[in-house]
Amino acid sequence: MEPPSILASYQVDLDAYLRDTLAGGRPPLLHRMMRYHLGWEDAQGRPTEAAGGKALRPSLCLWACEALGGERRQGLPAAAALELTHNFSLVHDDIQDADRERRHRPTVWAVWGAGQAINAGDSLSTLARLVLLRLADVGLEPAAVVRACRILDEACLAMIEGQCLDLEFEDRAEVSVEDYLEMIEKKSGALFGAALQLGALAAGADETLGERFSRAGRLLGTAFQVRDDLLGVWGRRDVTGKPAAADIRRRKKTLPLLYARDAAPVGDRRALAAIYRRQNVDENDVQRVMGILEQAGAHDYCQSMARQRLDEAVAELAGSPITPAAHRELREVADFLLEREF
Amino acid sequence: MEPPSILASYQVDLDAYLRDTLAGGRPPLLHRMMRYHLGWEDAQGRPTEAAGGKALRPSLCLWACEALGGERRQGLPAAAALELTHNFSLVHDDIQDADRERRHRPTVWAVWGAGQAINAGDSLSTLARLVLLRLADVGLEPAAVVRACRILDEACLAMIEGQCLDLEFEDRAEVSVEDYLEMIEKKSGALFGAALQLGALAAGADETLGERFSRAGRLLGTAFQVRDDLLGVWGRRDVTGKPAAADIRRRKKTLPLLYARDAAPVGDRRALAAIYRRQNVDENDVQRVMGILEQAGAHDYCQSMARQRLDEAVAELAGSPITPAAHRELREVADFLLEREF
Repeated sequence: MEPPSILASYQVDLDAYLRDTLAGGRPPLLHRMMRYHLGWEDAQGRPTEAAGGKALRPSLCLWACEALGGERRQGLPAAAALELTHNFSLVHDDIQDADRERRHRPTVWAVWGAGQAINAGDSLSTLARLVLLRLADVGLEPAAVVRACRILDEACLAMIEGQCLDLEFEDRAEVSVEDYLEMIEKKSGALFGAALQLGALAAGADETLGERFSRAGRLLGTAFQVRDDLLGVWGRRDVTGKPAAADIRRRKKTLPLLYARDAAPVGDRRALAAIYRRQNVDENDVQRVMGILEQAGAHDYCQSMARQRLDEAVAELAGSPITPAAHRELREVADFLLEREF
Repeated sequence: MEPPSILASYQVDLDAYLRDTLAGGRPPLLHRMMRYHLGWEDAQGRPTEAAGGKALRPSLCLWACEALGGERRQGLPAAAALELTHNFSLVHDDIQDADRERRHRPTVWAVWGAGQAINAGDSLSTLARLVLLRLADVGLEPAAVVRACRILDEACLAMIEGQCLDLEFEDRAEVSVEDYLEMIEKKSGALFGAALQLGALAAGADETLGERFSRAGRLLGTAFQVRDDLLGVWGRRDVTGKPAAADIRRRKKTLPLLYARDAAPVGDRRALAAIYRRQNVDENDVQRVMGILEQAGAHDYCQSMARQRLDEAVAELAGSPITPAAHRELREVADFLLEREF
């Protein structure tokens, strides 16, 4: 399933805006690491054609801005800030998870070491805020710029809290589905919430309407993460770029597993616990876990949870003053988030 | 030499403000790591009497605010933001330098691992900005709050650029005194510049006067770092808490060494180069390097560079509308920065 055309339409403007923001800069290494991570250059600084990310958060920000009658250029500083914030979290996540590869390329720390990769993430995070302040240059009142800063920083803090929980869960024997949902609402939901809220703010929405967009965004983000967990088990290697059943091989406690640990028959639950206590998981273990998850209905459980949240998000904005075209686009985005394979 | 009383007088208010800001919070681990790093708790979360840092940056911010007739409470949000930003950089630096100890205690990463320590640093950085936004609650106009955000973020970016250069220098054979000065102006000077500038802003200073405070702050910060480098070679272990000649043992390219590499006789320069190419430096090497640095006059070179910058800082504010009492205090602070042993 291809992303809806509305998302693709934002990427050209966003890409140009970000490239302009990150051109040049001293020291060269710091800026080279950022451009490399964003897929524009190879490790030697030569231009590449590597595919970047899906740019969902900034696209949703621009969508919200236009849906409420704002101009795209009014939303661009916030959109760029969101994409930089998201990428700051990816650069640090890759260090934390010891992931050597992302989007078929070595991660920043795998090329330059963890120390410099920490700097690359820190500078993406700082640049994000500097870019956000440009909202003042596209006509936003200072008081609204201050609100925008608070929205981004609160979302950023929630994201870090979620990441802290995620790492904690790896060492914790008991993680409930409830714990897990709290974690992804912070780690993934918060920044999607900020995306829609900042888009609305850039278009001049008041705080009540902004809150409504925030809620819709958090629901979209949570659904996005639930689908991500599903792809971590059942995703196709040729599409995701990750090994099949990647999350099982890494013994990650994602939603399908946590659900099966509660819902599977007692024998299966014991088998899961035994496999997850091992240091290394072999191919037989992977197949056994896949079988247990399928038997327990974990796939359908995740998919229906994602669907429910997406429907709630669409409903949240149904009565809001967005254009009928924008409403259709939101439905298309929701359908894409539910069915996407990558 | 004790810190001047004016600095100590700010610490009580700052400490109370920061403790209030960091009380509670979810997930507990994230907040516990931050409180631990700030010296308030042990690794199990029990209150401690550990000594915190010198809180120079926030104290200078409050000094600038009061020197221009502002009230202390108007400067506190900025002061707290500076201290949190500085501590964010320390938590990440400790990972990058693989330092297992700071202020006689294990570093955050040594207790909780690098992954969680990255989160602790990221959240200190994010909290810093959220705290800065409270300037709006103590009467600052939104437009001035936006200026404050830009000042902190630009200083933060410069600090990260400096840290990137610092790490780069470790792997680079040739580092000039000029390269080094650029690095410390970013890594240490920028945040001191922001400290004075934000204090002035909180007191209602206009941009021209703010720039002047910024320049003075950058000079103080650079002098602070030069003295730090001097203590890294000649500091007393019982006062600094670090091994004697710590920077030589770690083969760090700090100012005394870079100066001696240029100024020493050719035989000494060859000896230095040979020692710095080794993987491990033994006690004989340390003594040999100390001898070469002293012979070359590196100690006095550093001390006179620090003095010059401190005098420039004091002169920069001599003609500004600060009270005579504030002027005396600034001189006291400058004298302390020149002679401090820790």
